[in-house]
This record gives sequence, structure tokens and C-alpha cells, in this order.
Amino acid sequence: MPSLRDSEAARDLDDVLTWNVVRVARFVGNRLAGRLAGLGLNPIQFGVLAFLEKEGELTTAEIARAVLLRPQSVAPLLDGLEARNLIRRIGDRGKGRRNPARMTEAGREVLAQAWVIALAANDLGDAALSADESNELNRLLLKIALATEP
Amino acid sequence: MPSLRDSEAARDLDDVLTWNVVRVARFVGNRLAGRLAGLGLNPIQFGVLAFLEKEGELTTAEIARAVLLRPQSVAPLLDGLEARNLIRRIGDRGKGRRNPARMTEAGREVLAQAWVIALAANDLGDAALSADESNELNRLLLKIALATEP
Repeated sequence: MPSLRDSEAARDLDDVLTWNVVRVARFVGNRLAGRLAGLGLNPIQFGVLAFLEKEGELTTAEIARAVLLRPQSVAPLLDGLEARNLIRRIGDRGKGRRNPARMTEAGREVLAQAWVIALAANDLGDAALSADESNELNRLLLKIALATEP
Repeated sequence: MPSLRDSEAARDLDDVLTWNVVRVARFVGNRLAGRLAGLGLNPIQFGVLAFLEKEGELTTAEIARAVLLRPQSVAPLLDGLEARNLIRRIGDRGKGRRNPARMTEAGREVLAQAWVIALAANDLGDAALSADESNELNRLLLKIALATEP
């Protein structure tokens, strides 16, 4: 019969799914950040542009919900994209008014290049996964995301 | 033949593996944080204690490497654990000296409870995954982590 000490020694963070998700999130996040850096975008900015492409027009609050950040964190990010003329805030800036953002033509061009990079990063061959394994991983992750996001 | 516009409209962040990993990391991280809160631990503190349990004695730099944080971020976290008497720094605090940390008996007791919670969180039945799917997800994530971490 194994002693308590033995069973403690056998415990390993490799068996903790949450820990492994966070480890891999760090790896793939840094990897995508490195690959997008040439476009002057980080992965969150890519996400913002991708949501704007899909939705056409979004308020700061809507963008924050989409990219899972607080509106206070999103506002400076939008300022940066607007300063580079990749998005444009439209309408009235008055207090309490909707001030939605929209992508510009320049934003559309940068995003087209970012999409190629982001989709190419699905290939985890450099991280020991076959194409089938990468697909299965994405299927499982998406199943969790869709089941748990509001 | 689909126009460029159509193919743009068909692009979806759901197809970007990196995005889905980050989404799920946020979900499982918050979920574990909520479950560990009753013990007064966050997931990183759990990780620190788990590494100390495994290694016996670690310096701040070694702990930082293990939990993928910078030493400056780890030091206050260790202070907090030491203030609660869950770890103890041993040896000389002199400048440039090793000042490794070690778990206390109280730390060992809290960690034993945290392990039960962390391993129970592998069950993603509340997030639409079967037990087989959770196991497969962990296998794929661990394969990436082990192939890419130094």
C-alpha cells in the first residue's frame, strides 16, 4: 500500500488540465504576437479588427465583451488603432452617446494579412502536433468556449 | 465563384486556434480561481506550492521559471505565502545569496486540499466535454507544452 508521502510525490502539475491550458495559452499567444509584430498588431488588436470586419460597427462596450477585456482596457487600444487610421470612430462623441468604431480601408488591408498569419498559426507542427491533432484540439477548445460563453 | 467579400465574411475567429486557447484559458483559469478562493489561494500560488512540494526547495528565480512569471512578480507572491506561514524562506538573506523557499507543514495541509480541487477541475462535464474528451484535450495540451518549454 503506498504511503501518503508516495502519493504526494506522484502528483504532478502535468496532470492538471487548467495548468496545461494556461501554459499552452502563453506559448501560442507569444507565438502569434511574434508573428503579427511585423504588421504592428498584437493578437488582441487582431481580434478587435476581426470582430469589426464581421459586425461592421461596434461600440467600445461591445468590443470589450467580444475580446473578453474591460472597456477601460479596450479604449486605449482603440485609440492606438485609430491613430494609425486602421479604425475610425463615427458619430457623436457627446457624453453618454454611442460612439461606435468601424474599420477603415487601411484596416481592412492590414487585417487581410493578419488573417493569413493567424490561420497559418493553427499549424502546430512546430509544437509536436499533427494536422489531425491540431484540428481535434481546436474542436475541443471551441466546444468548451461555445458551451461556456454567455 | 465566391467574391473576395464573401470569403472575408466567412472568416471567423472560431477557426483561429490561438484565439480559442486564450478563450478557454480565461474560462478554466477563472473557474479554478473561484474554486480555490475558499482556501485563500489563487491558481499561481497553487502552482508555486505544487512545485515546492515536488522539488523541496527552490529559489525565487527557479520558482519564477517554473510558473512562467518574472522574478519581480513572484517575490510579492512568496511574501504573501510566507506571511500566511505556508512557506518559509531559509538561509541567509544577504545580498546575492540564495534564499530558497520551502513549504511548511501548514502549506502542506492547504496544498493537499488544493490538489483535490485542481484535479476535480479536470472534469469539464460542466463545459460540454466528456471524460474522454477532457483526457484527450489534456494529452494534446501536454504534448505541446513538453515540446515547446525549455
